[in-house]
Amino acid sequence: MNFASDNWAGAAPAVMSALTRHNTGYAPAYTSDPLTESVAQTFNEIFERDVAVFQVATGTAANALALAAYAKPGGVVFCHRDSHVQVDECNCPEFMTGGNKLVSVPGDFGKMTPDSLRSSMSAFPDGVVHHGRVAAVSLTQATEWGTVYTLDEIAALKEVAASRDVPLHMDGARFANALSTLGCSPADMTWRAGVDVLSFGATKNGCWCAEAVVFFDLKAAEGFEYLRKRGGHLFSKNRFSAAQFEGYFEDGNWLGTAAHANAMALLLAEGIRAAGGRTACPVEANEVFPILKRSQFEQLQAAGAKLYEWPGGDLPDSIRPSDDEVCLRMVTCFATTSEDVDAFLNTLKPAT
Amino acid sequence: MNFASDNWAGAAPAVMSALTRHNTGYAPAYTSDPLTESVAQTFNEIFERDVAVFQVATGTAANALALAAYAKPGGVVFCHRDSHVQVDECNCPEFMTGGNKLVSVPGDFGKMTPDSLRSSMSAFPDGVVHHGRVAAVSLTQATEWGTVYTLDEIAALKEVAASRDVPLHMDGARFANALSTLGCSPADMTWRAGVDVLSFGATKNGCWCAEAVVFFDLKAAEGFEYLRKRGGHLFSKNRFSAAQFEGYFEDGNWLGTAAHANAMALLLAEGIRAAGGRTACPVEANEVFPILKRSQFEQLQAAGAKLYEWPGGDLPDSIRPSDDEVCLRMVTCFATTSEDVDAFLNTLKPAT
Amino acid sequence: MNFASDNWAGAAPAVMSALTRHNTGYAPAYTSDPLTESVAQTFNEIFERDVAVFQVATGTAANALALAAYAKPGGVVFCHRDSHVQVDECNCPEFMTGGNKLVSVPGDFGKMTPDSLRSSMSAFPDGVVHHGRVAAVSLTQATEWGTVYTLDEIAALKEVAASRDVPLHMDGARFANALSTLGCSPADMTWRAGVDVLSFGATKNGCWCAEAVVFFDLKAAEGFEYLRKRGGHLFSKNRFSAAQFEGYFEDGNWLGTAAHANAMALLLAEGIRAAGGRTACPVEANEVFPILKRSQFEQLQAAGAKLYEWPGGDLPDSIRPSDDEVCLRMVTCFATTSEDVDAFLNTLKPAT
Amino acid sequence: MNFASDNWAGAAPAVMSALTRHNTGYAPAYTSDPLTESVAQTFNEIFERDVAVFQVATGTAANALALAAYAKPGGVVFCHRDSHVQVDECNCPEFMTGGNKLVSVPGDFGKMTPDSLRSSMSAFPDGVVHHGRVAAVSLTQATEWGTVYTLDEIAALKEVAASRDVPLHMDGARFANALSTLGCSPADMTWRAGVDVLSFGATKNGCWCAEAVVFFDLKAAEGFEYLRKRGGHLFSKNRFSAAQFEGYFEDGNWLGTAAHANAMALLLAEGIRAAGGRTACPVEANEVFPILKRSQFEQLQAAGAKLYEWPGGDLPDSIRPSDDEVCLRMVTCFATTSEDVDAFLNTLKPAT
Repeated sequence: MNFASDNWAGAAPAVMSALTRHNTGYAPAYTSDPLTESVAQTFNEIFERDVAVFQVATGTAANALALAAYAKPGGVVFCHRDSHVQVDECNCPEFMTGGNKLVSVPGDFGKMTPDSLRSSMSAFPDGVVHHGRVAAVSLTQATEWGTVYTLDEIAALKEVAASRDVPLHMDGARFANALSTLGCSPADMTWRAGVDVLSFGATKNGCWCAEAVVFFDLKAAEGFEYLRKRGGHLFSKNRFSAAQFEGYFEDGNWLGTAAHANAMALLLAEGIRAAGGRTACPVEANEVFPILKRSQFEQLQAAGAKLYEWPGGDLPDSIRPSDDEVCLRMVTCFATTSEDVDAFLNTLKPAT
Repeated sequence: MNFASDNWAGAAPAVMSALTRHNTGYAPAYTSDPLTESVAQTFNEIFERDVAVFQVATGTAANALALAAYAKPGGVVFCHRDSHVQVDECNCPEFMTGGNKLVSVPGDFGKMTPDSLRSSMSAFPDGVVHHGRVAAVSLTQATEWGTVYTLDEIAALKEVAASRDVPLHMDGARFANALSTLGCSPADMTWRAGVDVLSFGATKNGCWCAEAVVFFDLKAAEGFEYLRKRGGHLFSKNRFSAAQFEGYFEDGNWLGTAAHANAMALLLAEGIRAAGGRTACPVEANEVFPILKRSQFEQLQAAGAKLYEWPGGDLPDSIRPSDDEVCLRMVTCFATTSEDVDAFLNTLKPAT
Repeated sequence: MNFASDNWAGAAPAVMSALTRHNTGYAPAYTSDPLTESVAQTFNEIFERDVAVFQVATGTAANALALAAYAKPGGVVFCHRDSHVQVDECNCPEFMTGGNKLVSVPGDFGKMTPDSLRSSMSAFPDGVVHHGRVAAVSLTQATEWGTVYTLDEIAALKEVAASRDVPLHMDGARFANALSTLGCSPADMTWRAGVDVLSFGATKNGCWCAEAVVFFDLKAAEGFEYLRKRGGHLFSKNRFSAAQFEGYFEDGNWLGTAAHANAMALLLAEGIRAAGGRTACPVEANEVFPILKRSQFEQLQAAGAKLYEWPGGDLPDSIRPSDDEVCLRMVTCFATTSEDVDAFLNTLKPAT
Repeated sequence: MNFASDNWAGAAPAVMSALTRHNTGYAPAYTSDPLTESVAQTFNEIFERDVAVFQVATGTAANALALAAYAKPGGVVFCHRDSHVQVDECNCPEFMTGGNKLVSVPGDFGKMTPDSLRSSMSAFPDGVVHHGRVAAVSLTQATEWGTVYTLDEIAALKEVAASRDVPLHMDGARFANALSTLGCSPADMTWRAGVDVLSFGATKNGCWCAEAVVFFDLKAAEGFEYLRKRGGHLFSKNRFSAAQFEGYFEDGNWLGTAAHANAMALLLAEGIRAAGGRTACPVEANEVFPILKRSQFEQLQAAGAKLYEWPGGDLPDSIRPSDDEVCLRMVTCFATTSEDVDAFLNTLKPAT
């Protein structure tokens, strides 16, 4: 009954198998090896066009370096108030960008709206040096609340970004989960909707350590290898990262693990609702945010379930936990089994 | 006949085996897992005292973050002119330290001497704000020329550093190779000789991606987790790094791979000398720097040998390559076989 | 009728006179001159204790460098959402601190309250590396809304800061105006109320270019000269800055100019209210924020009055401008005359 | 007998007079005032073309920000080993550029040669991410040794810079002194010889605090106002800086003060040679580097002469001070009188 996070499991079998398979012989270091080149080709195929792809060590590094590629002195980045870049990266984006400011855009369930974004940007008119200047917009797909932007919603945010001539970044730490939900192509969910640069996360969906910055805006990718190296994010034996990506992509493995995780989340949500509980927001990826009585939560913990409290204070009034309730976060992944889900639901007693 | 570098091979069997072994079940993320804790204990045992150990993504990150822990506005770091921090890290140390300056200290074969260090430091007297201020001394063990500082030499550099109240950092990308050569304990080669902080490299000696910053100066380690995270160097599934360290250390595997690599280097050097060649400097770890006729180098390349030219312009007059000679670098590792060495030496024809 | 800002006038007579008086002979550069030393003594006297004072080029530099002295990797600074450090410094604080994050604390009329501060800080519990860590609290005295913290209010914010072991910074761009209002001593308004470091602004109150960082926390001042120089903020002929401070302080000139500016602001406010207008908030220093009909504003502009619109969207509901109203900012200074005020009030016609 | 530096005097009469003259009335802040605009026009006239000029607080800021405008992640700046940017700016250039590395180019008497520059650059071939990449070349005119590059010498350095596609920066802290020596136009000494960006210093030659970054490369100047503000270098009452420039330029005052200072330096040098002394290098601007017996130096000091020892260790063998000699630096400025020179020479006794 482990629903603590999607980074508590190890690597999926196909990923581990690829890593083992490539552990022989010599290969050039620092991304000059044939496997890294072959994975780059796979990215081109997946996105149906030439992309510039750079493997890095962590999702935080991917986000911060992607934003750094567009940073300006006095630059301002717009992101959701609950976004990972704003809340969970210990100022890595601020540091890597030479002090760009991250402005929190409000919005329900992790999503900015064109209006909330436009309103936040309006505080930074062009040409007022004191306030700094707009530099980028960053959205998260799927969001920190497990919701997913539709293609139209992404395009609408792009329109706002483009109206101020700044790029659109997508934090895709849970890219595959969102993709599985939308059922569209990777190209549709990114550059065709206006995304300029993507943090492509594979770690949460079945790798050990496989993250990449993917540029659709090839001009902005120029010189990115120096940004990566200056941050200490160029692996010497990059083969170990590339091998994971090979295993991740082959035979559509990544789509399978994401679809599985999403399905487990839906199962959980249905069961919770059947037991009289509710969820804070729609379940659209691999996260469920149940609102339960605190007594239920304690009971679940006592039974060994791993799940965490989540700040619910910014939820809309109609949803916000009451004094004896608690908002929780549950995350599923490739390793989650239906037995885990059943065990959890069996433990969950109706609120009394 | 691959002697290109010690980061061209994959992972040693014991390392890969540990990684596979730990690929099951759930474990807390972000270094809160039991395996990371257990590896931290192993570090304590190896160094015969409490140390503060932080796993990071790359050797460059380890060096830059270690120096950042001691950085000061206007700070100056002293290192050998050929050192990795100075030459091969794309300004990562300068960036992570908020612009500290790295001053190149001269010295034969990759080694600073107390005199050369003292002389370089003398240009930065205390209290002259314009010049900045001394911040740290960084030595590399084994050096970029495959030489090894003796314990007395380390202690002598420490004395100079201490005379200016700055810490001594050791870049241990090839720590095990140096240790094997000296035959001393890890404690002797580090804190007992005055080292305050160590970049402990395991990647070159048989891991995929296993680097750590090890503080003997526990006070300086306070808050280092923020420095690491701010740099994007905190792994979510750190277990994969910890597992490699477990395999690396168990049964003295790391000492075995290092001793083997060193032995292969010595074999190479002897064979080259037997063939009438010479080496630029003593072979004290896993690197050999032969000086050969250019025609010999071309012949070796044509036969498929992988080895690179190395800048020999700063070598002492008596050794520097003549116009028809070339200085080369050859690196051995855990995967180098005596058959590789024999094949190379059989291909090497005496200069004519 | 120029009420555009308190940085549109030149230097007050006493300041200009001191600058002229000290324009002869030679003096050591880079703050080693006797005049800089003498001004440092004056600061000690004014604050009734030893302080460490560093003259810098601008108020933005003073704020950013003061915060940099307390910066930490992953550090978070708490300030009012309308504060100069947050809104008007083009990310200089973020840059100088190596990417510290500035968190906007809400509060009416430019003032944080202990509750709003505590609530903002609670999102950054100790020990959660992802969120970063609390680093400092910065308040502005007088605030951007021309209001003034009472001594008790300052002490209450200090208590919150101290509960998290972080220092209290005061942005004193309008220090003298606030001091004049409170009628207390400089010591009372700063270190006795818990302020650790002060940006002491003299430019707005009658200097050309005279700003200083004043540390009451002498330990934190150690090495600050390197921070200043690294930012390019050490004047060679610092005498020109020191001379301005001498003229500023002598014979209580600074208190006189501040009292005069404050009095002019009160005159303005009374006149505006007499004409049926209202002000957005209490007038406690040298700024007035009238809320007028847009037609009145246009009429004033047509008559040559210099004053600006000010964003009033965050004002409390009961005060916020209606659709045909506009919030304006008027600033008085040493050069404002009662004739200016009269001319303005005579031009101001009652709303129709 | 004060020859300590050219920043020990105050402001020249014409500069002080302009500052006084402009101390009345109101003017927009933050460089929007008519005087700043008028001074910008004067720069256009002086350089016979459109330039982009930005006033800043210090020469260090001018240099560091100019280099920051061309900075790249992993960037490397080439400058003379004795240059101010390398030796005397407390890492401000490294900080402002996000950690660019300053590489010391050797050369006699403060001057790089095309060969020494090319050789230094050759260690940074294009495309080797580990080493970083070339970013800029910075020369000082006049140099730290009081020598002056000829127009051909500047053009030759430009050719080397252009061969690697990097800009040429000129640190013109003593621009006027060099200009006076060459007798050419400001345009000839800068953009016509290939200079892309200039730190135009006026402080040493008669201002209190007047420094500017002048771009001939207008594209690179885009957004520079954000770099300046992010560094805390945008004056609110910029009028006080602009007024100094007005007084500096009017009636050719700046050329007069520079010519005077240069003439005083030549007088000094002649007198020293006449007394049997020698100078370390040609006297081409307003600095003299006498090599005297230590006993002579002590005698001069005892008589109240202000002059400093200067490190002579890198001088060519034929010139380097012997054990009983000392290399000194003497600087003249607008305030130096022939009486000062005579008094000094009268005090100087022949070595015995």
